[in-house]
Amino acid sequence: MSEHTPLDQAGSDPSVRSVGDPFALAEGDPFGPHNLPYGVFSLVGEAAGAAERRVGVRLGDHVLDAGAAAAALGSPYVSLLAGPTLNPLLAAGRTAWSDVRRALTAWVTIPAHREVVRPLLHPLSEVTLHLPFEVADYVDFYASEHHATHLGQIFRPDAPTPLTPNWKHLPIGYHGRSGTVVVSGTDVVRPSGQRKAPSETAPVFGPSVRLDIEAEVGFVVGTPSELGTPVPLADFREHVFGLTLLNDWSARDIQAWEYVPLGPFLGKSFCTSVSAWITPLEALDTARVAPPERTHELLPYLDDSAESVADEPAGYDLRITVTLNGHVISEPPFSTVYWTAAQQLAHMTANGASLRTGDLYGSGTVSGPSEGQYGSLIEITWNGRDALVLPDGKRTFLEDGDEVTLSAWAPGPDGTRVGLGEVSGRVASAR
Amino acid sequence: MSEHTPLDQAGSDPSVRSVGDPFALAEGDPFGPHNLPYGVFSLVGEAAGAAERRVGVRLGDHVLDAGAAAAALGSPYVSLLAGPTLNPLLAAGRTAWSDVRRALTAWVTIPAHREVVRPLLHPLSEVTLHLPFEVADYVDFYASEHHATHLGQIFRPDAPTPLTPNWKHLPIGYHGRSGTVVVSGTDVVRPSGQRKAPSETAPVFGPSVRLDIEAEVGFVVGTPSELGTPVPLADFREHVFGLTLLNDWSARDIQAWEYVPLGPFLGKSFCTSVSAWITPLEALDTARVAPPERTHELLPYLDDSAESVADEPAGYDLRITVTLNGHVISEPPFSTVYWTAAQQLAHMTANGASLRTGDLYGSGTVSGPSEGQYGSLIEITWNGRDALVLPDGKRTFLEDGDEVTLSAWAPGPDGTRVGLGEVSGRVASAR
Repeated sequence: MSEHTPLDQAGSDPSVRSVGDPFALAEGDPFGPHNLPYGVFSLVGEAAGAAERRVGVRLGDHVLDAGAAAAALGSPYVSLLAGPTLNPLLAAGRTAWSDVRRALTAWVTIPAHREVVRPLLHPLSEVTLHLPFEVADYVDFYASEHHATHLGQIFRPDAPTPLTPNWKHLPIGYHGRSGTVVVSGTDVVRPSGQRKAPSETAPVFGPSVRLDIEAEVGFVVGTPSELGTPVPLADFREHVFGLTLLNDWSARDIQAWEYVPLGPFLGKSFCTSVSAWITPLEALDTARVAPPERTHELLPYLDDSAESVADEPAGYDLRITVTLNGHVISEPPFSTVYWTAAQQLAHMTANGASLRTGDLYGSGTVSGPSEGQYGSLIEITWNGRDALVLPDGKRTFLEDGDEVTLSAWAPGPDGTRVGLGEVSGRVASAR
Repeated sequence: MSEHTPLDQAGSDPSVRSVGDPFALAEGDPFGPHNLPYGVFSLVGEAAGAAERRVGVRLGDHVLDAGAAAAALGSPYVSLLAGPTLNPLLAAGRTAWSDVRRALTAWVTIPAHREVVRPLLHPLSEVTLHLPFEVADYVDFYASEHHATHLGQIFRPDAPTPLTPNWKHLPIGYHGRSGTVVVSGTDVVRPSGQRKAPSETAPVFGPSVRLDIEAEVGFVVGTPSELGTPVPLADFREHVFGLTLLNDWSARDIQAWEYVPLGPFLGKSFCTSVSAWITPLEALDTARVAPPERTHELLPYLDDSAESVADEPAGYDLRITVTLNGHVISEPPFSTVYWTAAQQLAHMTANGASLRTGDLYGSGTVSGPSEGQYGSLIEITWNGRDALVLPDGKRTFLEDGDEVTLSAWAPGPDGTRVGLGEVSGRVASAR
């Protein structure tokens, strides 16, 4: 699949574009037929309302209009792929996910199918990408031991240990605002809010002066669950469809003043960005790895050392890159995250909370153990103490106009890479 | 409107029921034409899917099929009232809310209209009530000074003051799980989770042994707002459609172990119950009161002492009653809550977070200053120290089979009462 595919003859359909053969992928293209992530697009130049939005599948630098392809080929999956969101596909469940993926693979690899779908492949440059699914509930975890350790060292330097006592016993999480989850490319308006320095007696209100990023991976729930019934560790892949990159923009000054005792609220709720492409878990089978060694015995509902679960590890070897205005500032390794997405799901439902199609949960900031692997500016600059020196200036926190992009890849079959796309956002001035 | 209405003659329509004249209300009926709260119902004996769910308006002990009434009367509001949720009406905005309410008032008071809608009024005993709207984001506040003070006294007896330093400067809030908001009458399955006593070295997992209630009022957002643009105090009634009673079931033992540093999660996310009836703010104009005197100067976006805002106070004189297995255990006065719903809305959007139709936000536990006015068992029993003695047994926290009901009323016009209905739930054993 990774070999160079020779240019096919253009078909006789007059709508075939002349901008290059969509099936002619460069060797090792991370968006080859081994990947096939899902998104939602409209065509540049048309309206972008629900009527124009359709499900797209990425192949190289093109987007296949998946619903139209299904219709053209007489596939039974038209209703799952017609748009304007991925929710019908998400709700269809694991067997359908596999069946649709198998069909899509055939459509972009078998010559006769290729000729049918060729006119339905649009160059990326000619499409607008939209939020690919309707977000139901959004939960954010705090699952990277290195990240939590760094924040403990920064904020509680005198505590006996940097981690709170509960940290190694459960994946700490909280609910965020699902209504402000936006797709990559959406500007992030600098939030205003209350902040109070320890030396001040009263808070002031104004634009955040400590705007930060959090480089995360988000997991997208497809199959719902029943209220009152927990989802066990082993059922992770029955419920979770795929993953996305996620930037949990954070106003550190707002958060610091508001968060005792009920946790983050306005310091986070202004914006959370996700990538336009949802990578199905099935495309990442070759990226599965065992999670870090557990240092504490886990309660049974979280214990992933049992053979039946450990045989299907829920860690993922995703290599994330963070750029600020085009300069690489960090390369966080997702494989170092302590709590897996399966454990997060089991924990999130252990109290009987139900899942809905479109639930999204983030890993929390991904930070590796070493400098150069931290997933937030507060760690990279050690709470502003050590400015980050870039070719075009210094940074402690984000300035207006700054653009942050997370991208990632994972090991694919036969030495290929599976591209996870990117999530990008530019900081706009406070209104 | 509060006088006894004489029985009308039954019309000639054969579908007219013989169970009593729906327009013959007892004097002072809290669900008279001055109230007209909205819900969603299906008929007992029919399926209860989306196709059968329709918008209902309560009149006395009957429910008017509002969409059918609109159709029968040739009203332009059919599309807002057709069901299966209130969301289209919520999204229509303040002018439409007034227009529809005026039309409904006419339909149930003008004799000629009454004869048309009479067959469309169903006895409450013949309907099933459903969750009346699709919940978008759910936020819970912590806005009662007495409640926050009591919890401070219980948990931080050695602190210089029971309130955290931020409490008088902003309404503390956090996001909850919108997917587990259920309608009154839904059983509450006792949640399981991790808990750890201070004397233990590791947590245990099992059913919560400290299951509690929180008596709250919930506010339902109708008109959305734009991402990046705060909603000022004065625009409260442009965005908020009405209110509901809300029980924020809470597992105190799960919450105590999990909540540092990111706030409540599984201790709350298993279930939140709301009443089946949404009372429009317009029905509560006579219940508006000034909020408690402010002890601290407020930042401008929260300052409701300015004349333009203070002239339209956003406090509400709601008298709540809490019963446990039918025994009254508390009567929390909502008028004592420090932060108003308008301040909560302004705060929630101060960072630019957008509102969606169906957003729900709770006041937090409503507790008055006196014994007999506390809105949670943790306060009533002072964290389990003083058992509550009921005719049929003692309680510290809830036992399986216990049923808790919140009901409320507010002063209406001319000495009437506006009934807010009730939210009820029975504790089912852990699964």
